[in-house]
Amino acid sequence: MNGKYKAFWLDDNKNVVVIDQRLLPFEYETMTLKDADDAIFSIKDMVVRGAGVIGNIAAFGVYLAVKENDSMSYIKRKAQEIRESRPTAVNLMWAVDIMMNALEKAKGNLLQTALEMAIDISDSDVKRSSLIGKFGCDKFEEIMSQNAKKSINVLTHCNAGWLAIVDDGSALAPIYEAQRRGIDIHVWVDETRPRNQGANLTAWELEKSGIKHTVIPDNTGGYLMQQGMVDVCIVGADRVSAQGDVANKIGTYLKALAAHDNNIPFYVAIPEGTLDFNIVDGVKDIPIETRSEDEVKFIRGLNKDGKTQTLQIVPTASQSVNYGFDITPNRLVTGLITEKGICKANQNAIETTFKKEKQ
Amino acid sequence: MNGKYKAFWLDDNKNVVVIDQRLLPFEYETMTLKDADDAIFSIKDMVVRGAGVIGNIAAFGVYLAVKENDSMSYIKRKAQEIRESRPTAVNLMWAVDIMMNALEKAKGNLLQTALEMAIDISDSDVKRSSLIGKFGCDKFEEIMSQNAKKSINVLTHCNAGWLAIVDDGSALAPIYEAQRRGIDIHVWVDETRPRNQGANLTAWELEKSGIKHTVIPDNTGGYLMQQGMVDVCIVGADRVSAQGDVANKIGTYLKALAAHDNNIPFYVAIPEGTLDFNIVDGVKDIPIETRSEDEVKFIRGLNKDGKTQTLQIVPTASQSVNYGFDITPNRLVTGLITEKGICKANQNAIETTFKKEKQ
Repeated sequence: MNGKYKAFWLDDNKNVVVIDQRLLPFEYETMTLKDADDAIFSIKDMVVRGAGVIGNIAAFGVYLAVKENDSMSYIKRKAQEIRESRPTAVNLMWAVDIMMNALEKAKGNLLQTALEMAIDISDSDVKRSSLIGKFGCDKFEEIMSQNAKKSINVLTHCNAGWLAIVDDGSALAPIYEAQRRGIDIHVWVDETRPRNQGANLTAWELEKSGIKHTVIPDNTGGYLMQQGMVDVCIVGADRVSAQGDVANKIGTYLKALAAHDNNIPFYVAIPEGTLDFNIVDGVKDIPIETRSEDEVKFIRGLNKDGKTQTLQIVPTASQSVNYGFDITPNRLVTGLITEKGICKANQNAIETTFKKEKQ
Repeated sequence: MNGKYKAFWLDDNKNVVVIDQRLLPFEYETMTLKDADDAIFSIKDMVVRGAGVIGNIAAFGVYLAVKENDSMSYIKRKAQEIRESRPTAVNLMWAVDIMMNALEKAKGNLLQTALEMAIDISDSDVKRSSLIGKFGCDKFEEIMSQNAKKSINVLTHCNAGWLAIVDDGSALAPIYEAQRRGIDIHVWVDETRPRNQGANLTAWELEKSGIKHTVIPDNTGGYLMQQGMVDVCIVGADRVSAQGDVANKIGTYLKALAAHDNNIPFYVAIPEGTLDFNIVDGVKDIPIETRSEDEVKFIRGLNKDGKTQTLQIVPTASQSVNYGFDITPNRLVTGLITEKGICKANQNAIETTFKKEKQ
């Protein structure tokens, strides 16, 4: 309950410091968020990203709004702007709702209420992350035993590690837990074009933890699965519908198809907040964010002088398009790994597991 | 019969000039191949690539060997080195076989025989490309009519245009033909990591021809298909087995899965030389080339000063792996578009269409 996490933390002035994830893996810098607009900028510009951390920073963003001006009309206006800072992440709405609820019911000091609630949301995420790690790693051990193998090859897409969800991630939590249990684990890291979160963030996280991994082009996973080189796929999600359809980083659906075609289990690791009980048919109804085509046409990397730099990689006259997410239909999902255990990706199982608490 | 094609041509000294495809789209340079070793280098280092053009340059490589030294022992040695310059392209073996056969039977001037045969191989490719274009475009018109649409959206992976197969390509031949027929066509161009042949070569070709296109990350195609934004997929191939399994650029299999999942026709455009009747089960038996991990870890693009430059895009301590191809099983292939018409991707149909001529 000290407001300090791996991906962000409160400083001595009770401002929020975040790792600038846009600069990883070649530069490490932090950014201090002093007001709600800073928080909105950090979400919109992807200084922070990842469903969980977006939710956390949204919560702390409401807190920063209160810190600026504790009139409810101001706080509500900023809360609305925070809600609109990224369209796909349901955690964002969820966190803002909890904050606004608490503030509307608050009797004492609004600032203190906001701070405690934001910390509470993040602390709860830490606990959830740890439980997801435990349940997921139990599943890994089961898969190793079924396959009669002493090691496990896991494929993941995008970044759902501690840069995305405090403090162990969702998809990476079972991997960190496997390391703690001494399991021989190797991770296939999808590069994850166009923003390369796999190469830039997941590889960076795993390298820092000393976990064996190989960065692969997004095109490679199907071949690896055909060749028996993947034992299990695990990804996070930005939103999961009431029937278990999964909105996650564009390209996830392709890996789920390949896993299904090769009888490889495909798991989605999510905390409860990622479930959206208001949407049933994810393919039809989850809105998909369209981002700037510049993210496709330009790429950032390290030059020979050890400086980060940007290059154009698509001809100037060619247009590009950049959809942020796709939807993996529940029929391709082996199970959801949650803080309440592993549940099947169907409406019945999800409602039973979560007792429809959010609705 | 003048030995001049879009992707390479004979110069006045009867040397072979090729477009250096490693430098496109931001720089245009040619390279002159003066001997067999130059030809081998150009294939190995991917100065030229694409199944057809590799075959053509292999044939001209044998011709260049004869030009250096017309003893059969020397020619055979160089022919063997040419065969080994890329492991997956069956056209390479096919073209070298034809050349060596002709040379062994030759009664007159070996050099003249070699030159005529290499030109003949390439001229035949031009005719095949034109027929593939015709049959493929007929299919496009059929699909438009079935979908009751006045335009067509085509998705392609990698480059199978005239940089790959003289003089209209394989997968792109029906697209060029559609343009000639005045059809409203738009092409989704997969970037095609890690070598970005889609962004670098296909986009460049289409732009030069004024064909509408959009460069997309390899992750995007599944979402586009879910959303009804793709009417047909068409790709080339490096090798197709006797039962119709398709070895093509890594990632092709993932697009075939998505097309199948969304009832979108998935066609593979190939000249006959791409068929390998010696291999039946492509998934099990087609050898897959492993290329340098540097192709994953580094990327080339245009900097602000308008110069091409290379950046590192994977952390130094992370390893990468670079498989060049994957195998799309025949069950996911709607049909093979060949110079002899469109045939189903199964052993019976292939044998009937090609009367097992090559065996």
